[in-house]
Amino acid sequence: MEIEEEILDFINNGHKDHFTDVTIDCVIFGYHELQLKVLIGKRFGVNGSSFPGGHIGRNETLTGAASRILKDRTSLNHIFLQQFHTFGDSMFRLKDFNNDLPQIAKDSLPADNWLFQRTFVVGFYALIDFSKVKIKKDFFFEQFAWLDINDIPPLLYDHNEMLDKALTALRNQIYHQPIGYNLLPEKFTLPEIIALYETILNKKLDRRNFPKKLMSLEIMIKLDEKRNIGQHRAPYLYKFDKEKYNKALKEGIILVF
Amino acid sequence: MEIEEEILDFINNGHKDHFTDVTIDCVIFGYHELQLKVLIGKRFGVNGSSFPGGHIGRNETLTGAASRILKDRTSLNHIFLQQFHTFGDSMFRLKDFNNDLPQIAKDSLPADNWLFQRTFVVGFYALIDFSKVKIKKDFFFEQFAWLDINDIPPLLYDHNEMLDKALTALRNQIYHQPIGYNLLPEKFTLPEIIALYETILNKKLDRRNFPKKLMSLEIMIKLDEKRNIGQHRAPYLYKFDKEKYNKALKEGIILVF
Repeated sequence: MEIEEEILDFINNGHKDHFTDVTIDCVIFGYHELQLKVLIGKRFGVNGSSFPGGHIGRNETLTGAASRILKDRTSLNHIFLQQFHTFGDSMFRLKDFNNDLPQIAKDSLPADNWLFQRTFVVGFYALIDFSKVKIKKDFFFEQFAWLDINDIPPLLYDHNEMLDKALTALRNQIYHQPIGYNLLPEKFTLPEIIALYETILNKKLDRRNFPKKLMSLEIMIKLDEKRNIGQHRAPYLYKFDKEKYNKALKEGIILVF
Repeated sequence: MEIEEEILDFINNGHKDHFTDVTIDCVIFGYHELQLKVLIGKRFGVNGSSFPGGHIGRNETLTGAASRILKDRTSLNHIFLQQFHTFGDSMFRLKDFNNDLPQIAKDSLPADNWLFQRTFVVGFYALIDFSKVKIKKDFFFEQFAWLDINDIPPLLYDHNEMLDKALTALRNQIYHQPIGYNLLPEKFTLPEIIALYETILNKKLDRRNFPKKLMSLEIMIKLDEKRNIGQHRAPYLYKFDKEKYNKALKEGIILVF
């Protein structure tokens, strides 16, 4: 495989318009029909996998860079993206990263290249419907896969710890911010939203109290409308109150269930 | 005031052994007898105040640097320190920081000095008993004060937003990790621990359910011992189960009250 000019320019001159001490990694969770998965990339030229990430341009904000990285990878706009932790305790990143570069790039690189430096990694997570996206590959990742979160192999760097922290943050977030928009149909049934929460939390919820609580917070509205799913089966439909949902996202809630 | 040699060396050569793109700021909350305060420093030579912070040595871990900065400032060891957010959306930090340096330092500095660069700031918070510490001043801070969190003036940079985020994180933490160790006497009464939680959360708690919950999580133990506080008044004493407390700190809890 030949290194394209653009990549070579990034390797040689990227430090001029990107920060060198700080990078971003994205833990992209995917939910669809009772399954919670996470996006893992097989690194090019290396025997190992990791979460996708990227560098921050000197004229970008941190949040702006994370959104761009996520959008480049998923083609999705306006994803709810949550910063959850900055990783800076691994002192051996330089060595790891060195191994991680494709041989062809390594051969053309001096050891003091900016990409070999130890960096602090700001971790963001997102939660999307994995059935709706097509993931883009690039020079650094030869392949991507959605893996079940209960079936993750050893990853490069500190990325297994990163997954643990992201999952804890996602689960804690559920108690303080609503989730579900873009993951459920616009009009959904109680079993559908309960399944979403139960899958993420990996535990059973009280099927009476939980919807009551969402309705008392006014995030979810019961519609005067049913879905026919079979003989004698027509559960009521619900939807999110988008305005109240966004307010809760911004201001936080205490969800006790 | 004369700039000491050590400071001048830091200004001129600090970038060699410190990261230049990333710094740390510490929001140090102080609790004592129903009061929740925060430590604010008056910057030397500038009309403004901010949280104390510091730079990360190239041989330090992120957590190690935060502990050192906190210890240098408070002389306290083994404080529970929580990373809560990394700030990187303010694009004008360079300009702000420029204004913030003492004139005498500015006069001796070229505009491309490393201290003038835009940085990403990793925010940590701590919660200590403010009656037990003496805060150290230094070249960059001429004075420190513990201010009530409901009475905070406009601060430099994005530090008012930083306080909001730290306070939200502290309040959310209460639902997922225990607090109180080092803030209460070794043996405390129910009114004392309830007051601590109510002060931090800024709301009234259910006085029956709340202690029950802490005991069901086995974090708190009721002692067969009372404290005499007056005629006919002798409330039972409680203490933390240190082992269970540390386990809960590490593994997380769901505290519903």
